[in-house]
Amino acid sequence: MKVRVHVSLKPGVLDPQGRAVHHALEGLGFSGVEDVRVGRLIELDVADGTPDAALDEMCRKLLANMVIENYRIEKLETA
Amino acid sequence: MKVRVHVSLKPGVLDPQGRAVHHALEGLGFSGVEDVRVGRLIELDVADGTPDAALDEMCRKLLANMVIENYRIEKLETA
Repeated sequence: MKVRVHVSLKPGVLDPQGRAVHHALEGLGFSGVEDVRVGRLIELDVADGTPDAALDEMCRKLLANMVIENYRIEKLETA
Repeated sequence: MKVRVHVSLKPGVLDPQGRAVHHALEGLGFSGVEDVRVGRLIELDVADGTPDAALDEMCRKLLANMVIENYRIEKLETA
């Protein structure tokens, strides 16, 4: 089973990487960009019977830093 | 307009970060994890009229390294 975990900084947490990207986009001449936030996208291939609780625990224990980050788990249909 | 750009390594490209996460998950006792790939999730807030071509160009020029990475652009409905 394929699972995608989206990890993004909580609103209000300063994002220097996002700011650098924003600045670089402006430097390249792209106008109209108002905000940029950079997060992580983790693609897991787990055994089919893996319970949601286990996925949640993976995120809380390792994949996301719960102090400054939010996560969202997205299960992909087995193709 | 909110736009999400998903950047992931192309299949076949070695992913040391993903391997480290995989190893750490096993160390924490999570079994059944077969593969882990780590990518980036970039959230852009752009002006409403921004054409798709401009978004595409941002990805090709800055957000993704086209040699080793793929990207996918997802436009979010303006809430």
